Amino acid sequence: MVLRDGISLSVAVEDAVVLLELLADHGIPVDAPCGGAGTCGKCVVQVTGAGAPDAVERALLPPERLAAGERLACRLLAVPGLMVTVATARGGADHKAELGAPAPAAAGAAAFSPVADAPLRRRRVELPPPSLDDSAADLERLLRHAGCGAHRLSLAALRALPALLRASEYRVDVFEAVEGADEPSATLLAVAPAGAPGAVESPGPWGVAVDLGTTTVAAYLLDLGTGHAVDVHAELNRQADLGADVLSRIAHAREAGVAGLQRRAVTQLEAMMQLLAERNGLEAADILGLTVAGNTTMLHVLLGLDPAGIGAAPFVPVTTGARAFWASEVGLPLHPAALVRTLPAASAYIGADTVAAVLAAGIDEGDGLSLLVDLGTNGEIVLGSASGLSACSTAAGPAFEGARIRCGVGGVQGAVAAFAISAEGVPVATTIGGAPAVGLCGAGLLDLVAALLEAGIVDGGGRLLPEGELPDGVPDAMRGRCREVDGRPAFVVVPAAEARDGAPIVLTERDVRELQFAKAAVAAGIDALLAAAGVRLESVERVILTGGFGAFLDPRSAVRVGLLPAVLGPRTEALANAAGVGAVMAATSRAHARRCDAIAARLRVVELSASAAFAQAYVEHLGFAPLRGLAAP
Amino acid sequence: MVLRDGISLSVAVEDAVVLLELLADHGIPVDAPCGGAGTCGKCVVQVTGAGAPDAVERALLPPERLAAGERLACRLLAVPGLMVTVATARGGADHKAELGAPAPAAAGAAAFSPVADAPLRRRRVELPPPSLDDSAADLERLLRHAGCGAHRLSLAALRALPALLRASEYRVDVFEAVEGADEPSATLLAVAPAGAPGAVESPGPWGVAVDLGTTTVAAYLLDLGTGHAVDVHAELNRQADLGADVLSRIAHAREAGVAGLQRRAVTQLEAMMQLLAERNGLEAADILGLTVAGNTTMLHVLLGLDPAGIGAAPFVPVTTGARAFWASEVGLPLHPAALVRTLPAASAYIGADTVAAVLAAGIDEGDGLSLLVDLGTNGEIVLGSASGLSACSTAAGPAFEGARIRCGVGGVQGAVAAFAISAEGVPVATTIGGAPAVGLCGAGLLDLVAALLEAGIVDGGGRLLPEGELPDGVPDAMRGRCREVDGRPAFVVVPAAEARDGAPIVLTERDVRELQFAKAAVAAGIDALLAAAGVRLESVERVILTGGFGAFLDPRSAVRVGLLPAVLGPRTEALANAAGVGAVMAATSRAHARRCDAIAARLRVVELSASAAFAQAYVEHLGFAPLRGLAAP
Repeated sequence: MVLRDGISLSVAVEDAVVLLELLADHGIPVDAPCGGAGTCGKCVVQVTGAGAPDAVERALLPPERLAAGERLACRLLAVPGLMVTVATARGGADHKAELGAPAPAAAGAAAFSPVADAPLRRRRVELPPPSLDDSAADLERLLRHAGCGAHRLSLAALRALPALLRASEYRVDVFEAVEGADEPSATLLAVAPAGAPGAVESPGPWGVAVDLGTTTVAAYLLDLGTGHAVDVHAELNRQADLGADVLSRIAHAREAGVAGLQRRAVTQLEAMMQLLAERNGLEAADILGLTVAGNTTMLHVLLGLDPAGIGAAPFVPVTTGARAFWASEVGLPLHPAALVRTLPAASAYIGADTVAAVLAAGIDEGDGLSLLVDLGTNGEIVLGSASGLSACSTAAGPAFEGARIRCGVGGVQGAVAAFAISAEGVPVATTIGGAPAVGLCGAGLLDLVAALLEAGIVDGGGRLLPEGELPDGVPDAMRGRCREVDGRPAFVVVPAAEARDGAPIVLTERDVRELQFAKAAVAAGIDALLAAAGVRLESVERVILTGGFGAFLDPRSAVRVGLLPAVLGPRTEALANAAGVGAVMAATSRAHARRCDAIAARLRVVELSASAAFAQAYVEHLGFAPLRGLAAP
Repeated sequence: MVLRDGISLSVAVEDAVVLLELLADHGIPVDAPCGGAGTCGKCVVQVTGAGAPDAVERALLPPERLAAGERLACRLLAVPGLMVTVATARGGADHKAELGAPAPAAAGAAAFSPVADAPLRRRRVELPPPSLDDSAADLERLLRHAGCGAHRLSLAALRALPALLRASEYRVDVFEAVEGADEPSATLLAVAPAGAPGAVESPGPWGVAVDLGTTTVAAYLLDLGTGHAVDVHAELNRQADLGADVLSRIAHAREAGVAGLQRRAVTQLEAMMQLLAERNGLEAADILGLTVAGNTTMLHVLLGLDPAGIGAAPFVPVTTGARAFWASEVGLPLHPAALVRTLPAASAYIGADTVAAVLAAGIDEGDGLSLLVDLGTNGEIVLGSASGLSACSTAAGPAFEGARIRCGVGGVQGAVAAFAISAEGVPVATTIGGAPAVGLCGAGLLDLVAALLEAGIVDGGGRLLPEGELPDGVPDAMRGRCREVDGRPAFVVVPAAEARDGAPIVLTERDVRELQFAKAAVAAGIDALLAAAGVRLESVERVILTGGFGAFLDPRSAVRVGLLPAVLGPRTEALANAAGVGAVMAATSRAHARRCDAIAARLRVVELSASAAFAQAYVEHLGFAPLRGLAAP
């Protein structure tokens, strides 16, 4: 859906179509003087959920704008999971979202129709009024004419049924859950008076899919009638004050109980759904279902389950399966018939977010071997194809999320998200949104260290060379940025005058060390997964980078610092919000929900903590590859 | 189960066995000097749920004791539905109940095992504790080892699971619902710590079956592990202050809303279950399920559904199907996983109580044609066999329940329940419990009018003859009871001196008229059903009398007054608490619950209000058959 000047348009994505054409077909004006030839660079849209930019986009848009999510509508396919914001005539900053119907992954299930497969649907039903010849009871009359085999009406809803049927003159809209795979049957969930005669069919039912990340929470408003996400809203996780990462939140729960964390999770989701509902002319009580992806700890927190078992060996969660509870039981004031469904996890540390990401990336249905690298607050790696899936979890997150980096920040406005040395030898730091710099986020850290390695300012051991030891080829503008902080060598990424808070954004040797720990963990995890699966690195046909940090990093920098093996660099693509897109897919399609169950069951978890091969690989990956010279990467 | 000196014994009834032997087998002393030969008349037990007394019992026990439920243990088969009270050595009045396993009806389903077919069961499960090699989540570990495919644990129960598993060292008792007919699967409902090692297997799960009658409410405590009812408690319906019959309660609901009635129903059931739980060493929260039979209005009241549609054409209830709601939704503080299940009804006036009675009487599975006559506050008649069922409802109740009879009372202590003229011509009125007379209940009214017809004191038109017109053969003792009340002829059933309240119990001509209305409605209903089914009266092989009044009347009196056709008199048997027994059967057996659905669906409802044949038959049945003479009936 694209919101334009307050008008909502639902757009079904049947076939892969160029985004520029799709927008034009729906009367959404995007400036494109070259007619989509890929030469003018004017058809800029703001997107998330797209793959890596192609050569045309890299030539026409500067890296900082690409890093900020700007892309060319003429070069993008309108694929499922894509969210697009088109600048309005007013130039307003309204959030506008287009998220295509979750279509089947490239491989397999081609004939799948998302709408026919929706787990919830709304239908108009007209009942013959009762007579002496047909005095069937109200509920039985409704079930018979709606073709529902069962109901889950609350007693309160059943109590209201007689008056509702009579007031609406037996013209009603029924909301049903469609359940079962082989012979699906409909279960009546709710009844509402039909819209006025002649009006367009009422939309909905409405659902919400959520990716409850440790750092970021994303909620997608879904029109389950069309199978489309029609709006999205993301915020930082409000549990941050009780711990930045999963382990510290588990520690908090162990000391203070899980209630405080749960209250934050429920309050936040309630507020987010309220916001999504309001800006789409709905009420939270119109939302008939909530599907939640997230790591195992976050799902425990949301449900108020003690996460203590996750925090200590043998790492036993309370539940990992796909579960459903009444929204009222969880404490969310949605529709009385609404269920909160959690997607299934594979283990304590391979969560429902990873399962959803595998679904979104289509790894489980691909013929060729794929590697999913999900880098957010945690780092999960999945290797596999239709014939098998294995996964491991690494402690990669903190460095990438900025937690242990001196000037580290998350992917916020003003975060340095890209760094390059211009042809003239001038350092160019690009911030998200072009705002005055506030710190260094994961993608920027990776770019920066890659550039400093190339420049010879950081050596193979991770040492930031003092000015006196810098090699000859280092340009003066770079050399001028090398100075001491707290008596140790450091690099000034953004001088004080250009930073928002008047203090320079600097990189310290300790920051480099943190990056080394993180990238070694990921690289060794990849090695360990490959070893456990008995496959060679070269067999991996496709690498998908996702996660709050993963989707935004430059694959070339990832290769340069050794996060990814060099051979995989050209096979790497980005997939933003993979867990969120997977949650949307599972919420809008029963087949996809079943695929989640299959993925969770098939994922073989490789425990790195018990792996000697991992420990050895980790040590080997701590260093950086030798200097390649000063050529631009 | 028999409670004896505070000790509970569960007794399974596998085959039809003489009650005296069964009690002896289980060490329950019943005095029987003749050894069960049927000559001493000493093995008296108090029962409900037995058929009509046989010749030996009638010879050895006076009618008033039979009317009060006393029977000979040597003459009774221990059949399902039978409840027995054995006097203790202390002579205490403790309630002791034996209610055999609801076995299949005589016809069909002979290989059926009640316990294997229970809808709820409790099992001991021992789980391997988690290890690094098996770190499955708590719930998934439990489901896997218990073999449950799904769960309905509340979120609160799931939150408590980790601590429960660890505190019980992974030895737990699971409570499961078994669902589905062809391939039943188990759904986990609840978990409890296992009993101490070596202790007997914990009993249960516990359920309750209720027959929520308009006048009387009966609740049966069920051990679903054995399929047995272990205790029973009955009370007058506490809604009586808001209306004596269904129509007046519907009128009350229409004026004041259903909430007041519902509050009474819920409060009463809560108190009854509390009482049953307490006297069996349980708590209400141990009760895992409640199955309710009752007429359509009473089930609406319990669920808080507006019964207005039942009260006016076209007589449309809110729901008639078998429904299930959380006990907490209904407002009953049972186990958190408990469901309240209502049995299915056929229509607004052929309710779940009639369906349950058909089940208990086995009419739906019989080869021969049976006629069920359920006479309580309402009068329902069912005609049928395995090849078809039809039913009608008549306004028979008020006279039989005492509502419109001058000295009418329900079946309470002191109610005149039998009336006869001795060989010496002396009137003998027998009261329930042998207590001083308080009034005339339905069975007594029927006996009385039958006797007065035989004596020629009431004529064929229903006139109570004035003393001057009495025929010559009327004995003096009877003649002396004929006098005027309020200027109209009346008959003194119990003189003032023998009545509890010092006022005579009298029968007026108007009372006789009320009986004529009632018996004509039943007799015409039988005619109309037979006509609609196209069968002759003589084809009816078996008549089952049940209901608060029906089960206690003397079939000979019923024939004499014309309530039943003469040809059916010898084919008539009584079945006490048929609806309650049916509710117990449906609550303890999935096959029986499914049979209820089939009965409700198969019952063809014959609308008497629209039937000209009924109207004509009604008029024809208003009179009495001619005087047969003064011989004792």
